[in-house]
Amino acid sequence: MCGGCSAGSDANGTPANGTNGNAHPVQNRTASSPYQSVQDYLSNVGNFKIIESTLREGEQFANAFFDTETKVKIAKALDSFGVDFIELTSPVASEQSFKDCKTICSLGLKAKILTHVRCNMDDAKAAVATGVDGVDLVIGTSSFLREFSHGKSMAYIQKTALEVIEYLKGEGVQVRFSSEDSFRSDLVDLLSLYKAVDGAGVHRVGIADTVGGATPRMVYELVRTLRGVVHCDIETHFHDDTGCAVANAHAALEAGATHIDTSVLGIGERNGITPLGAFMARMVVTAPDYVKSKYKLKELKALETLVADAVQINIPFNNPVTGFCAFTHKAGIHAKAILNNPSTYEIINPEDFGLSRYVSITSRITGWNAVKSRVDQLGLKMTDDQVKQVTAKIKQLADIRPLAIDDTDSILRSFHAEEVEGSAAS
Amino acid sequence: MCGGCSAGSDANGTPANGTNGNAHPVQNRTASSPYQSVQDYLSNVGNFKIIESTLREGEQFANAFFDTETKVKIAKALDSFGVDFIELTSPVASEQSFKDCKTICSLGLKAKILTHVRCNMDDAKAAVATGVDGVDLVIGTSSFLREFSHGKSMAYIQKTALEVIEYLKGEGVQVRFSSEDSFRSDLVDLLSLYKAVDGAGVHRVGIADTVGGATPRMVYELVRTLRGVVHCDIETHFHDDTGCAVANAHAALEAGATHIDTSVLGIGERNGITPLGAFMARMVVTAPDYVKSKYKLKELKALETLVADAVQINIPFNNPVTGFCAFTHKAGIHAKAILNNPSTYEIINPEDFGLSRYVSITSRITGWNAVKSRVDQLGLKMTDDQVKQVTAKIKQLADIRPLAIDDTDSILRSFHAEEVEGSAAS
Repeated sequence: MCGGCSAGSDANGTPANGTNGNAHPVQNRTASSPYQSVQDYLSNVGNFKIIESTLREGEQFANAFFDTETKVKIAKALDSFGVDFIELTSPVASEQSFKDCKTICSLGLKAKILTHVRCNMDDAKAAVATGVDGVDLVIGTSSFLREFSHGKSMAYIQKTALEVIEYLKGEGVQVRFSSEDSFRSDLVDLLSLYKAVDGAGVHRVGIADTVGGATPRMVYELVRTLRGVVHCDIETHFHDDTGCAVANAHAALEAGATHIDTSVLGIGERNGITPLGAFMARMVVTAPDYVKSKYKLKELKALETLVADAVQINIPFNNPVTGFCAFTHKAGIHAKAILNNPSTYEIINPEDFGLSRYVSITSRITGWNAVKSRVDQLGLKMTDDQVKQVTAKIKQLADIRPLAIDDTDSILRSFHAEEVEGSAAS
Repeated sequence: MCGGCSAGSDANGTPANGTNGNAHPVQNRTASSPYQSVQDYLSNVGNFKIIESTLREGEQFANAFFDTETKVKIAKALDSFGVDFIELTSPVASEQSFKDCKTICSLGLKAKILTHVRCNMDDAKAAVATGVDGVDLVIGTSSFLREFSHGKSMAYIQKTALEVIEYLKGEGVQVRFSSEDSFRSDLVDLLSLYKAVDGAGVHRVGIADTVGGATPRMVYELVRTLRGVVHCDIETHFHDDTGCAVANAHAALEAGATHIDTSVLGIGERNGITPLGAFMARMVVTAPDYVKSKYKLKELKALETLVADAVQINIPFNNPVTGFCAFTHKAGIHAKAILNNPSTYEIINPEDFGLSRYVSITSRITGWNAVKSRVDQLGLKMTDDQVKQVTAKIKQLADIRPLAIDDTDSILRSFHAEEVEGSAAS
């Protein structure tokens, strides 16, 4: 549900004040927009948890090399931001990976610490030895992975899974069991396996779009089906190869998933997974109260900068919220309305993230309302007609060459000196 | 439908060879994955058109200043790529904008040329004077825009729209009529207006998520509803403020939309709209034959580079397909499978885009199968045990500091010289 247009219905879409207490209940209901969709009973869009995997999936990003100091910094920043879980690279990956797991477990963070290992007893024992709160077990179940990766049958996978889960539960840690490449796994195999591990008492099962090929409707169908089969929580993990990772996470929550995997800026294998920031942008629109009360959105930019520096990348120009132009308005028709009421062209309030909007007047598509706002900011006094004249000048010049904000300020000041003060003096 | 797993059903989900001609029809159907979802009768995922708006929406991007030469270059590159329509900035925006419309109309491109203007007679006349094939009319219909932007009533909007449409049809150009901010417009108002303009003979109506707040399910619902109300084509336009613009375009096609607005790298107001490249990534997975036969995917990278240079931005590190690491595989468990069969961890074939994959072996999470592949590439001869030994060495070093591909090659060569040739000599 979008901020600013939820009046008239509660979270379940029931009209408020159906027959009394509201002067215009019928008009309110008639005026409802599709943004006020009836929420499913299944939906967890206003009640989800984040499993932040920058220190696991993120370490699989081409540029990532995190030394211990960097890992600790990132873990602390994630914890401060408010993520529920922090997932770490398998302690079996290398000697230092094992030590780093122990180090991060000993920091005393509020977030629960998880590590992500293959579904076998050796890996599970190494995980427990690090002191993590939970272990995320993973195994490939698609025909592709069974044939070309580990070569194991579904029967073998299930038998091993149950043994490892029993061991981990005996050790008192949380257990998640996930398939890899869930969307290309046989549905009946997948549901049978998940029913079995649910019966064995796992805390979560995981659905992973490992190759990034799923669409929101596929996600909704599969998670909704799974929701009817298992009692435990449902975690989901979406790669972004086809640009759907944020929307898929949203669809998963709508279908009853409880946990979403993210990484800062989405870093991970290939072009990565659901980015924490873009996911926050999506969810602050869908469930503003939940998101604003739970996560320190004003820390997002610093968190992204920390990780971007650590892996030597630039924050993408088009990154939701923190991209350099996410709140820049340029077309005259937009600028006019934004200056009247920011909600006209902004679904997200930049101030929620400690950021501000910018109305550009340096192009040929600017309009006089935007220019008037800048004139006011500069403390110049002009009539509307004079603003229209100077706007024409700016558009003429911007038609020939790119203008900077300095250029337009100079034009405004010189126009003011010549036309306004000049004519007042004459 | 994903490439590589469509055997057993045709595009409508009907099982092929139901009772004969296939030895295992039942198994094939049982083994179907959720990727093989039954396609709706409404769906246009395998039959859509692109309205490419880099030269209109893209000009609203903060960094964009396109001189005539650049516009012509971009228009020709888009035409060569195979987009169906090229949309240009309103000729009313500035004198040069008018001239540039005329110039691009005179290039004789295969793509139809459109311009995007406010829904009034002056703008419509200027559009016709440029020689475009079609005119995209737009007006804000949300309560926000009616109150804070143009201040007009729905009755006034409809009356003006019908007059302008009649004029344009008389001039023999294609007409599209679109609302702005459709998802926050009153549904009944919107459908009434679209029914009226459909009756007046427009070629397309447009649904625009101007503020970028819609989700795929909202899009599906609205487009499906509209599909039952109008007979003309349906164009859709999605901003990416909450990271859903690609998934929303896909959902729109599933619900019966016919045309999708894109811009190269998604450039536009704020953080932009559905990016052409990411949309191609999505659609080549959903409808591989249609996309590969219609669009010159191998030109995507050059097209993106052209536009990125023109607006002085970097291609985002995580851009689908053309991001620097979109086909880089790093985790040992991934690399092993990729080397056996790329489809295990790639839903898109990089070769379709004239690109290639890269298997990284420079990190502590690498595995011996990946290292073996590099050993083979370098023409070194080692036993599997030797490869495992040298892999341990690489992981040890990568645990301490970042390694480059040169570093690991040196390790492989020196190990080969000492351990392999050395032991052979001894």
